[in-house]
Amino acid sequence: MAPVGVAIGLPGPVDPRTGLVYAAPNLHGWEGIEAGRLLADRLGCRVAVQNDANLAAFAEWTAGAGRGTRDFVFLTVSTGVGGGLILDGELVTGAAGTAGELGHVPADLDGPPCGQGHAGCLEGIASGTAIAERARAALAAGERSRLAAVGDSLDARDVQAAAEAGDALAGRLFDEAGRALGRAIGGIVNVLSPEVVAIGGGLLGAGELLFTPLRAAIGEIAFAVPLRRCRVVPAALGTDAGLVGATAWAVRRFTAEG
Amino acid sequence: MAPVGVAIGLPGPVDPRTGLVYAAPNLHGWEGIEAGRLLADRLGCRVAVQNDANLAAFAEWTAGAGRGTRDFVFLTVSTGVGGGLILDGELVTGAAGTAGELGHVPADLDGPPCGQGHAGCLEGIASGTAIAERARAALAAGERSRLAAVGDSLDARDVQAAAEAGDALAGRLFDEAGRALGRAIGGIVNVLSPEVVAIGGGLLGAGELLFTPLRAAIGEIAFAVPLRRCRVVPAALGTDAGLVGATAWAVRRFTAEG
Repeated sequence: MAPVGVAIGLPGPVDPRTGLVYAAPNLHGWEGIEAGRLLADRLGCRVAVQNDANLAAFAEWTAGAGRGTRDFVFLTVSTGVGGGLILDGELVTGAAGTAGELGHVPADLDGPPCGQGHAGCLEGIASGTAIAERARAALAAGERSRLAAVGDSLDARDVQAAAEAGDALAGRLFDEAGRALGRAIGGIVNVLSPEVVAIGGGLLGAGELLFTPLRAAIGEIAFAVPLRRCRVVPAALGTDAGLVGATAWAVRRFTAEG
Repeated sequence: MAPVGVAIGLPGPVDPRTGLVYAAPNLHGWEGIEAGRLLADRLGCRVAVQNDANLAAFAEWTAGAGRGTRDFVFLTVSTGVGGGLILDGELVTGAAGTAGELGHVPADLDGPPCGQGHAGCLEGIASGTAIAERARAALAAGERSRLAAVGDSLDARDVQAAAEAGDALAGRLFDEAGRALGRAIGGIVNVLSPEVVAIGGGLLGAGELLFTPLRAAIGEIAFAVPLRRCRVVPAALGTDAGLVGATAWAVRRFTAEG
């Protein structure tokens, strides 16, 4: 029996209506490819193409931290910051199909650029990459920290370990990342009034190092009424979210259950 | 013949499902009032209660700058900064009913508080109130400007007139307001990928003083793909938007056309 359809999550902006991969910074040669059509030809069944973070959001909404809600926001914080939105029970993709890029919102007028070169956006403060870069910059500027012993190879996990051991620089970088994330969530609460905001991604391994400043900062921006109706929680599905999301998305797109 | 229904726009957060007025900073005594039920009892017909900026957004989507789109964002910039969202052809109200508060998103980590006391949010830089307050603060700090002749009563229109006459302080304040608005719109483009963002409200009288820095700043944050699919335009309905929106909303809620 041939499969009814296949859903595939790609790490980059795609147009889910046409299956076009707009850009693929981590998939050499995929840029501008009509992945949906090409895969459908090879596989002999229908193929739905989505952004991987959108599928993870759909997974958390279907079977994870957002289950049972109508309005759900998923934020993933790892080497970058991404996410996805389900509003009124529908995955939001917008006119270009690329909606959900929650890491690329203003955070600080004078903040550092993110990996995409956006000045002062959330990802430039709150991603694992940003935390590591900011640590290296502080060391280069002469700040004293146990991170000096790690050297130029230091990554966000080293900063986490240093923060857990009481290092002041490392602790401050997690405070700043958590505050920027919390303020962004406060803005999301005001603009969308979701029932649940779930946060996933590798940086969540830092636990309260990130969550304590994050929770404290939401109230800097959020109105009390929508905040009372919103739970901010860790994501539930871990690294399975993409796979669960692709399955759930294929069911929705290609079967009568959807 | 009795009317089928009435829609009313209120200047404050409301729950459109229950008709409850959560808060009413400009309507003394309305806080916590079940306006929908009370008005329905008096008027003898069904009553739909909405936030006034959401109705203006609905008007611009139905009959103004967002006509014919599926995904539309309306931003209003006057004494405060507000807005409303139509996504996939539906007005977004969220879990609390209060969605659309586009003025209350992060703009600057160290920015001044807005009228609601939110530290560093968009309204604290970009509203007419903020522009006037920042002008007064700069004068108090000894900055030289022709605004010194206006005195403490100065408002955003005075700042606009001074900027048009080439005053450096006044020009800088409009540049900063426009930049913050443009960056916020860039974030909206990334998160929602709307077809049109329309900007209305009294501050639009400043024209290119505001729009030139605004347009330039969108690209600081926005990805190229969704930005190419998005037009950023002035709103079309002016001060009629609330009335048009209430009418259109009543039609949608209470008739077979809706």
